[in-house]
Amino acid sequence: MRTKVGIIGAGPAGLMLSHLLHLQGIDSVIIERKSREQVENTVRAGVLEQGTIDLLNETGVGDRMMELGQPHKGIEFQFSGKRHRIDFEKLTGGKEIMIYPQHEVLKDLISARLEVGGKILFNADNVSLHDIDTTEPKICFQHNGENQELVCDFIAGCDGYHGPSRKAIPKEYLHESEYTPPFGWLGILTETPPASDELIYTYHERGFALLSTRSPNVQRYYLQVDPSDDISNWSDERIWSELHARVDLDGWTLEEGPITQKNIVTMRSFMCETMQYGRLYIAGDAAHIVPPTGAKGMNLAIGDVQVLAEGLKHFYETNSDVLLDQYSDACVRRGWKAQRFASQMTNLLHHNHQKTTFEHGVQLAELEHISSSTAASSTIAENYADLKVDIPRVASGAHK
Amino acid sequence: MRTKVGIIGAGPAGLMLSHLLHLQGIDSVIIERKSREQVENTVRAGVLEQGTIDLLNETGVGDRMMELGQPHKGIEFQFSGKRHRIDFEKLTGGKEIMIYPQHEVLKDLISARLEVGGKILFNADNVSLHDIDTTEPKICFQHNGENQELVCDFIAGCDGYHGPSRKAIPKEYLHESEYTPPFGWLGILTETPPASDELIYTYHERGFALLSTRSPNVQRYYLQVDPSDDISNWSDERIWSELHARVDLDGWTLEEGPITQKNIVTMRSFMCETMQYGRLYIAGDAAHIVPPTGAKGMNLAIGDVQVLAEGLKHFYETNSDVLLDQYSDACVRRGWKAQRFASQMTNLLHHNHQKTTFEHGVQLAELEHISSSTAASSTIAENYADLKVDIPRVASGAHK
Repeated sequence: MRTKVGIIGAGPAGLMLSHLLHLQGIDSVIIERKSREQVENTVRAGVLEQGTIDLLNETGVGDRMMELGQPHKGIEFQFSGKRHRIDFEKLTGGKEIMIYPQHEVLKDLISARLEVGGKILFNADNVSLHDIDTTEPKICFQHNGENQELVCDFIAGCDGYHGPSRKAIPKEYLHESEYTPPFGWLGILTETPPASDELIYTYHERGFALLSTRSPNVQRYYLQVDPSDDISNWSDERIWSELHARVDLDGWTLEEGPITQKNIVTMRSFMCETMQYGRLYIAGDAAHIVPPTGAKGMNLAIGDVQVLAEGLKHFYETNSDVLLDQYSDACVRRGWKAQRFASQMTNLLHHNHQKTTFEHGVQLAELEHISSSTAASSTIAENYADLKVDIPRVASGAHK
Repeated sequence: MRTKVGIIGAGPAGLMLSHLLHLQGIDSVIIERKSREQVENTVRAGVLEQGTIDLLNETGVGDRMMELGQPHKGIEFQFSGKRHRIDFEKLTGGKEIMIYPQHEVLKDLISARLEVGGKILFNADNVSLHDIDTTEPKICFQHNGENQELVCDFIAGCDGYHGPSRKAIPKEYLHESEYTPPFGWLGILTETPPASDELIYTYHERGFALLSTRSPNVQRYYLQVDPSDDISNWSDERIWSELHARVDLDGWTLEEGPITQKNIVTMRSFMCETMQYGRLYIAGDAAHIVPPTGAKGMNLAIGDVQVLAEGLKHFYETNSDVLLDQYSDACVRRGWKAQRFASQMTNLLHHNHQKTTFEHGVQLAELEHISSSTAASSTIAENYADLKVDIPRVASGAHK
């Protein structure tokens, strides 16, 4: 089998890349370990920033998002018994976010690819990368019980943190750094109307809580817990009692509903530099993981492949690597911006028992600062609603 | 001896309070441990924020500052081989700071007080506070070899971190918190022209450096060092070599000069809540210490006594405690704002060897963020140039 761009992984990065390449007339094949059903039903959170919303709409895959997604024009910070709204619309000149789960984005992209004959090989096993430092890199895998080989011009590794792509880059070219925040998130799905029109991020000395939403009838709530805690320690009753303790206000009580799902997830911050080697480019979670507090995960992946698609387009138009050569730097720079923002949100909103009394005083002062200063709340709004992608481009007429 | 307000300490807080009270016709006496010569010649840094500049001018003690001080309209951040200006004037709507050493402010205030017969008792030994929970608190001390007693309506404890005032508040009312950043500052005075028109705050992986100024011919430079380091380890040659390594840029070399003074100071962050008990009010370093990175020390002290003077004025006009009762809350709130800002500047600009590679990546991203976002650089400008004092006031006609 031969294609121009072999893509490993049918997540947001891989599917969006394939879609963007298709729009440029560049052939690609996606190799995915899971079944289509698994991909489409692995429930993940989804906050789409303005740039992601725009890209989905501009490339013709935004219809269901516009119909089913919930546009939000701000978020709420809650602490010391009060709520403070961060008004995205006012502070960013009209930007907003869309609450639309990641797996719904994946459904839209899969159906758009298949509709025009795009090739996605689900259930592909034992994927491995070969000859990535040549102009004919190969992806080997098993599919329908047979060994297959996909020969490509380029490989895009969009296969997540645990996938084989990053590991195919020689160790001496990789600079990996990582941090594990000492916080876990206990997440529940509950059948009840939304607690509020917008997401509520609560700092409480008992720990962080997040009131998020999934649909008009199903809500997603989170509690900061010890990352080593076990979900079996958390009866529904205990979960509601802890949520009330953290988020209820004078005159406002969180409404309860049946809990249909509960689990504890740990957090990880991870950065891989470089994101390219030879003819291999890694994107999304394969290259960087951000804690969920900044709501950036899917947006980073989509941003990566916008840069990559632009580089590949330029290559096929001009046979020049000039933009592809800038891929890693551009994406790593944006990755650190996202890490900075996610770290700020995480440190601002969680209660860290290792902190001293003085450090907690500074943390409360930071919450007050953000709530009372237009400049400080603007930095939150700008980063949350639209962490811009600076796509390297070639000045017109300046083809190498 | 009797006075309305007994003031312990002839630093910025004590002297400015006495001056403000005099302008309201309220009698005070200052008790100071050191000699006038010592007070006027203990060289301290001095960055006056806009509110402090305005207060000195409005109360008639700003003439020498306007003549000898150096107004600065911004500061520079330097990192990764580049400088980025934080433009106070543009980002704050016209605010600026004044470089004017603290001991010069003290000279101006002492001369203003003495000119109109103000009473400052220098060389006062063994100061102690008595009956502070009554309406006739007393300060006992030795002066000219004699035991003295000053009976007051109120005592203002402006006697610094080590003074007796804070210790006179019963332990059960005090909530003290403190943090010792793991950084020392090696400071030098050198005879050379200014390195730049404005202060340069440099982050370098070898450590922080600050190029500050004292006068057209004398500059004050600082190097981050281990707080337990000894100045005898630092020859002049080593100091210059380290300064060059941290602050020199392509095409720009720091000019050297004779070093006339060098020492290493440690940092401390300290907050005391409450700042009042009975008829005792503590102000300035007696109540809170900030690391020098935020340049807030003297400004906090001056802000405290503005609030206190307003409360005392209201008391003597109406016999009401209503504003005095808000003294501690107002000053503690502003103290935490200053601590937050000083912590941000300290963490942003110092190299902390205890940090992981990932945390250093986030720190560099934070420096990039501040340098590239107008909103983020505005938060620095606003806090550096003018951390507002919210002086509690009584709505007109609402006397209790």
